[in-house]
Amino acid sequence: MTVGESLDFSHLYSEETKSRKSSPLKTCIHLFQDPNIVFLGGGLPLSKYFPWDNLQAESPLPPFPNGIGAAPSGDAKDTCVTTVPKDGVSKAGNTTDIPLSRALQYGFSMGQPELLSFVREHTQLVHKMQYKDWDVLATIGNTGSWESTLRIFCNRGDTILAEKYSFSSSVYAAEAQGVNVFPVPLDADGLIPERLEAILDNWNPETPKPKLLYTIPTGQNPTGSSLSDDRKKEIYRIAQKHDFIIIEDEPYYFLQMDAYEKDPSKRKAIKFASHDDFVNSLAKSFISLDTEGRVIRMDSFSKVLGPGTRLGWLVGSKKILKAYVQLHEMTIQNPSGFSQAIVAGTLNRWGQHGFLDWLIGLRQEYNEKRDVAMDALYKYVPSTPALSISPPIAGMFFTVNIDASAHPEFATKYQSKPELVEQAIYEKVISCGVLVVPGIWFKADGETTPPQPKESKAEPNPNGIFFRGTYAAVPLDKLQDGIKRFGAALKEEFGL
Amino acid sequence: MTVGESLDFSHLYSEETKSRKSSPLKTCIHLFQDPNIVFLGGGLPLSKYFPWDNLQAESPLPPFPNGIGAAPSGDAKDTCVTTVPKDGVSKAGNTTDIPLSRALQYGFSMGQPELLSFVREHTQLVHKMQYKDWDVLATIGNTGSWESTLRIFCNRGDTILAEKYSFSSSVYAAEAQGVNVFPVPLDADGLIPERLEAILDNWNPETPKPKLLYTIPTGQNPTGSSLSDDRKKEIYRIAQKHDFIIIEDEPYYFLQMDAYEKDPSKRKAIKFASHDDFVNSLAKSFISLDTEGRVIRMDSFSKVLGPGTRLGWLVGSKKILKAYVQLHEMTIQNPSGFSQAIVAGTLNRWGQHGFLDWLIGLRQEYNEKRDVAMDALYKYVPSTPALSISPPIAGMFFTVNIDASAHPEFATKYQSKPELVEQAIYEKVISCGVLVVPGIWFKADGETTPPQPKESKAEPNPNGIFFRGTYAAVPLDKLQDGIKRFGAALKEEFGL
Repeated sequence: MTVGESLDFSHLYSEETKSRKSSPLKTCIHLFQDPNIVFLGGGLPLSKYFPWDNLQAESPLPPFPNGIGAAPSGDAKDTCVTTVPKDGVSKAGNTTDIPLSRALQYGFSMGQPELLSFVREHTQLVHKMQYKDWDVLATIGNTGSWESTLRIFCNRGDTILAEKYSFSSSVYAAEAQGVNVFPVPLDADGLIPERLEAILDNWNPETPKPKLLYTIPTGQNPTGSSLSDDRKKEIYRIAQKHDFIIIEDEPYYFLQMDAYEKDPSKRKAIKFASHDDFVNSLAKSFISLDTEGRVIRMDSFSKVLGPGTRLGWLVGSKKILKAYVQLHEMTIQNPSGFSQAIVAGTLNRWGQHGFLDWLIGLRQEYNEKRDVAMDALYKYVPSTPALSISPPIAGMFFTVNIDASAHPEFATKYQSKPELVEQAIYEKVISCGVLVVPGIWFKADGETTPPQPKESKAEPNPNGIFFRGTYAAVPLDKLQDGIKRFGAALKEEFGL
Repeated sequence: MTVGESLDFSHLYSEETKSRKSSPLKTCIHLFQDPNIVFLGGGLPLSKYFPWDNLQAESPLPPFPNGIGAAPSGDAKDTCVTTVPKDGVSKAGNTTDIPLSRALQYGFSMGQPELLSFVREHTQLVHKMQYKDWDVLATIGNTGSWESTLRIFCNRGDTILAEKYSFSSSVYAAEAQGVNVFPVPLDADGLIPERLEAILDNWNPETPKPKLLYTIPTGQNPTGSSLSDDRKKEIYRIAQKHDFIIIEDEPYYFLQMDAYEKDPSKRKAIKFASHDDFVNSLAKSFISLDTEGRVIRMDSFSKVLGPGTRLGWLVGSKKILKAYVQLHEMTIQNPSGFSQAIVAGTLNRWGQHGFLDWLIGLRQEYNEKRDVAMDALYKYVPSTPALSISPPIAGMFFTVNIDASAHPEFATKYQSKPELVEQAIYEKVISCGVLVVPGIWFKADGETTPPQPKESKAEPNPNGIFFRGTYAAVPLDKLQDGIKRFGAALKEEFGL
């Protein structure tokens, strides 16, 4: 297959992006490194005045034989020590560290080269990119990346597409910018392509078509669903047909698991024969299907190393990433130099295979957490048709779906309003000493006029509500205890 | 004097801020710490899976007897070692460190308490705040803070006020957002209050009045001027009269110096008898004059510790900071946990006085750099009325002002256009092996219709151009060499 160049999507840019000028100062900052030029051009403090030297951090050592949660002892046999001096060279795997004199200086809007080269290689390894001019760009995490994406593409009054239930901060960020979030139905396998296509085929020709689809394909937040590979191909085709960009927000991508098996005796944790085996087991990403630079992938270290790194990366065409760099120069400049130095220092010492070992270890941990949560849910949530559980195959979240009309006081106390039942259950679970959150918090309820045509497919139960829980945030014993309390709350509410 | 509460300035907020909702998930995140609640509410990874422990960095030890540029030897007598464990308590001065299990977790949108308490105390020490409900908020530096400020207050089509020559990235950020930057004249003492007042007194009543004044009072970028304390009082009064917010962008605040003395034999570096003496020597900030929460101060560690910390803070009223927190929750979340842990760890070990020692040391360094630059300018820039130098008393920048009409080819080759002379000189200085940047790069040339009334005061020379250089970015020998090259370029251009 011939591998081509990305297309130009600048017709989808916002007014803001179209009018953004790069600071002329940025056009001459490369002269800082030119030995023939004395640089009196920009306010760069001398690195001599940066007070820090010999930055150091300990981490466990691949292949993490005692699991990724085992603390390093400090002993060389299980401890990886990242030491980053202020100047000069220290080795990190096949590359060198980012000296602090550079990490803590201005410059490198794309991110430090030692970080980018690791992330670029990782991306190629996992996603096997299908066009030439793709690249990666360091970010401060997906929350920031999504806000930047909205600024780059959307004007006030624009509409974007999103899963009907989606991460509320993402929805609210769009709404605050005056962007309408059009909900697209989803089920246990994620976004429904036929519904998406029907929405766009019947789009009111008098209103501008959506420029973006925002999706969390893997371990969707809040529903826990994962989009199947076949549906992704369909959605990509629809994106080409209706000329929109797909934004895949993938913080949970590496929290993919075995399918849940109810009978513990039949559970066999998948053992990967090789790193390739592991990579091949992963869901195909949208970016891996992309042949024309129509997908922007938002990746983050938040869920796999730690949220406080405030470090992530974008994958996309160089053309589009240029617009992000121009925006970053006026917003974040670049992620923290300390974060870049420590994360790149650690990853380059671990190597690509070491990082995959970490991700395999993480998968095992989440697999176990998910199993413990599911076991507890099946044990403590009363078995009745009004309450249903769909075991997730990725991510941090589970949901319990509830038919509100089955509540004994639905028609009386709650006036047949499912949202009132939802609120009552929320208060009950808190009073039982557990926090799970109502699905309504995640509802993308943007303008959908003109009304979309009715689908032949049965509409979901109009009295359906759900609660989202997570197995990520607490240890296993607390998780079981929490779900027990949740079950007790449901029993009480439904008089079971 | 009775100290009062801040006023409400929400009438100045943008449409975006007025419509921004906080994510409901943020309303329950505090339950993560509640011992009576099992938290299954949010996607917080267990800190057990954060791979780092024993973060460590070395810095010099106050009072920095060998100057702030002297590297720590590693020996306890001149080396401060900041060590931050993953869990548990390590002491930093009068407080404790931010354990990595917290620094690398979600939460604390305002910033980590150990950082905020240091910055709050520092702010009170330096600015002696005059109203009750002020606070500080951790940021990723002033570039990001300014962009957030624009989002919080401005709609497309709004106008803001700024110095006629200003930091180009700040101007371009506003322009990209569709915000008109109205230039206010400035001279060697900064913004001219009479001109500002005349502009506002004569404002076209049919167009909305400016909501913001953006100013860099100390070591202004690019002119190097510093706003006098008296002018600040005047400008604050005008802000009250015309109801706008003052945004003081103060990255160079602690780079204040002695007045330049041409004769080296007469130079006496000011020695401060005490830390109080040093603090009292500093220019009065706008925030120190503020009695009603009308000022937002943007402070940053970029110029005093290192740009790559990507860490700064805002000072303002709690009411207004709340709008920033809501925006941050959808953008940056919070600054890097590594940056916060290392910076707070170091500063809390140094203590308030240790940090002031650092700033006094920094002042000495910049004082010397400024002197070397001025000496070289007076030596190498040809002495002719067409070329003038005004020695700065703060910041990183010097300017050489040029009467373009004195160029021998002004009327011929350059068709009496000063901007063509400016471009020619720029190309000449580069070819002479030095980079200084043309003033035109910094010109805020927003819409000023209807034309403002002519001032009685003489207008500046319409053929006046200038170049900005910095003494910050290179060591002293290179600085002298660069200015020599700059002088040679000017000599050649002007046929002197």
